[in-house]
Amino acid sequence: MKRNNAQSNCPNLQKKPIGSSMKHFIVLSVAVSCMLSLNQFSWNIEQMYEINRMVSLKEAKMGVASSQVVDDGKTPINLDHGDPTMYEEYWHLVSEKTTIVIPGNQGISYFSDVGNVCWFLEPQFARAVTRLHEVVGNAITEGYHIVVGTGSSQLYQAALYALTPHGLLEPIDVVSEAPFYSSYPLITDFLESGLYRWGGDAYKYDKDGPYIEIVTTPNNPDGLTRWPVVNRSGGMLIYDLAYYWPQYTPITSPANHDIMLFTVSKCSGHAGSRIGWALVKDEAIARKMTKYIEISTIGVSKDSQIRAAKVFDVISDSHEHKGSFDGISPFFDHSYDQMTRRWQQLREAVSNGTLFSLPDFPPSALCTFSGRTFAPISAFAWLKCERVEHCANFFKQYNIYVRDGSFFGTSSNFVRISMLDRPEKFEMFIQRLMSIINSFST
Amino acid sequence: MKRNNAQSNCPNLQKKPIGSSMKHFIVLSVAVSCMLSLNQFSWNIEQMYEINRMVSLKEAKMGVASSQVVDDGKTPINLDHGDPTMYEEYWHLVSEKTTIVIPGNQGISYFSDVGNVCWFLEPQFARAVTRLHEVVGNAITEGYHIVVGTGSSQLYQAALYALTPHGLLEPIDVVSEAPFYSSYPLITDFLESGLYRWGGDAYKYDKDGPYIEIVTTPNNPDGLTRWPVVNRSGGMLIYDLAYYWPQYTPITSPANHDIMLFTVSKCSGHAGSRIGWALVKDEAIARKMTKYIEISTIGVSKDSQIRAAKVFDVISDSHEHKGSFDGISPFFDHSYDQMTRRWQQLREAVSNGTLFSLPDFPPSALCTFSGRTFAPISAFAWLKCERVEHCANFFKQYNIYVRDGSFFGTSSNFVRISMLDRPEKFEMFIQRLMSIINSFST
Repeated sequence: MKRNNAQSNCPNLQKKPIGSSMKHFIVLSVAVSCMLSLNQFSWNIEQMYEINRMVSLKEAKMGVASSQVVDDGKTPINLDHGDPTMYEEYWHLVSEKTTIVIPGNQGISYFSDVGNVCWFLEPQFARAVTRLHEVVGNAITEGYHIVVGTGSSQLYQAALYALTPHGLLEPIDVVSEAPFYSSYPLITDFLESGLYRWGGDAYKYDKDGPYIEIVTTPNNPDGLTRWPVVNRSGGMLIYDLAYYWPQYTPITSPANHDIMLFTVSKCSGHAGSRIGWALVKDEAIARKMTKYIEISTIGVSKDSQIRAAKVFDVISDSHEHKGSFDGISPFFDHSYDQMTRRWQQLREAVSNGTLFSLPDFPPSALCTFSGRTFAPISAFAWLKCERVEHCANFFKQYNIYVRDGSFFGTSSNFVRISMLDRPEKFEMFIQRLMSIINSFST
Repeated sequence: MKRNNAQSNCPNLQKKPIGSSMKHFIVLSVAVSCMLSLNQFSWNIEQMYEINRMVSLKEAKMGVASSQVVDDGKTPINLDHGDPTMYEEYWHLVSEKTTIVIPGNQGISYFSDVGNVCWFLEPQFARAVTRLHEVVGNAITEGYHIVVGTGSSQLYQAALYALTPHGLLEPIDVVSEAPFYSSYPLITDFLESGLYRWGGDAYKYDKDGPYIEIVTTPNNPDGLTRWPVVNRSGGMLIYDLAYYWPQYTPITSPANHDIMLFTVSKCSGHAGSRIGWALVKDEAIARKMTKYIEISTIGVSKDSQIRAAKVFDVISDSHEHKGSFDGISPFFDHSYDQMTRRWQQLREAVSNGTLFSLPDFPPSALCTFSGRTFAPISAFAWLKCERVEHCANFFKQYNIYVRDGSFFGTSSNFVRISMLDRPEKFEMFIQRLMSIINSFST
């Protein structure tokens, strides 16, 4: 299998001739790059979150929002998180249709559906999830148990708990091919569980015995289609399909893996509701995942399940009953158009110089849902700095905050940039990026 | 300090003379009691949950609800969980005032308040919590950080994570005086964390070095006021104040401990919303608790925070602006009256025979909130079977499902019975209890 990224941590100083104004940036970025070794991985991630919170605060105080965006070069631009605020625009358009009303005496009990394996699953959320998968054709639901979670992070932990065999002498290794989602190592290791531990890049994994491999497809951060890479006996698989929706990638067939994780955040954009769901083939595994959520949070917010159900029904309606949407595009068409425009802008900006590069276009495929043939459009730009070692630090000097590639198990030459933020922030980012590129072209 | 419960696990057969029809029950209950040793604690609790889910299903199918309750002796009555459905009645009365409306484009982002230590805390929930504590006078909020959680179970884990010192050679012990909340051991140990582990009854704890003690006051299961019992250097305290509300216990002074946990479930009854909060004095601890919730679920449902804010404001209004409530009693008065009536019914039923006993009335105190002088009214009855060893199994034969005392770190002579269920279920329970008591009196 082709590898997409270099794995070096502390590379030598940049050899290419560059403008003298760059030199002090490079010295700094190399120094920081060497400090950020993978041994200190989890604590660095914690610090990273903290830094970004402070940036968000500064950003909020200075105010990015304006209808006519003219970049001043100073306003902090935080594209570190995948905060899906791009979707606010669409939900503003169909705000009334998606409004929910909850009277004071609704949903008091802990229980939602005592007859269900997942007893805290709201039946209307289960129906809306099933309908949406049928409309989109991205996953089989028949014969599957739905387990609802407080976002897919909780479901990831529930799946680890459910898959861990009893009586192992040491924790089971959890692996994923690099670049992998930067939060997996921290979520896996933060409680120093005796059941499981982070085992690193699946591509390098060569131990015998049982292991769990996370297959994120399309992948976070680079949007590429993924398959299992370890492929040995004793392996158990969790498919993270957070981005397997038609605004990001062609839907080529309905997925039918044993455990599939989805999240509302990356489907409709309602991240603040903290709702995810798993489709699970085996009843015993679904029961154990349910048990995990029962022990850790005694279920999942009913209010947010009801809200997500409404949102999903509006998405399905927007495609199945287009006539009643006052000329507003169906949800996935609208979102696909937005993503496509943003990627055109980004590729055009990057192509103006040689400072940065983006992955080549992945192969196109026919989307069975939309009928369009297109190449995956990632929710994140996986961008490489071609002339500096520590790409995130380089951006920081321009008040742009993006996530360092080393957190994804690869090198600091790369950064992950959210493509899902509000239009005015994205516009300001593109303006500043062009200005940086221009200043290094002269 | 006076101990309330015997600690024996496998006691001898009952010595008192009893009716011959009881004998086979006793043999069975002793056998089961011995199987349920504390060594198998956590797995038994898991099985217990499963059994109760099945009972709830049977109960739902057979239907307990009816306006004129006449017990048939067969309908399963599940009072194992503390499902606070008693409160539905009040929220039905003020349903309109408490209704929330959430438009489709609200609360998309992960972030609620980036300037706050707890960045996912909705400002209106923070305001409603602060106001309610001021109205009731049960906790100081000035100088405290509010950390919101997915119920107080998540905050309990967040507090353990935040308090665990770095670099300990072995996990820190977590203890609580028996009878303790039956879920603490399972929540503490289910991931076999290297950071902390369940250390059992605080009263018996005699190790040196750091430890964490949970002080639940009023206590679950018995409703009694509690204080720390280990009182040694290296100890860190978490106060679980879930029941420190004026329908359960006299409010004697505003609590001002370092870490205090509260939950919406046991205050207003909205368990399905899964919202709890912690008041935390030390900023560094509040930050680390926030970090725990960030890693485990990337925040807490905004929809449910907004709903809880509305519910709390209506509670505060019902006491501060009584005139605008159409003659409906203020919330805590209404709830106190319900609880008092239920306890009268229960004590009256139990006093008809010698089969069961209840703890003596605890000392009365003046409630600074209501101005009433009363003894604590527990959300659970901590009932003792005086003539059988395994009390929960005895009840099971009458299709009454209650929680075995051994799960609370004491003996199976005791059971915990929820006093917070729907009126018709409570009424049926009282009828059946009286019928059992009568059948053993003749």
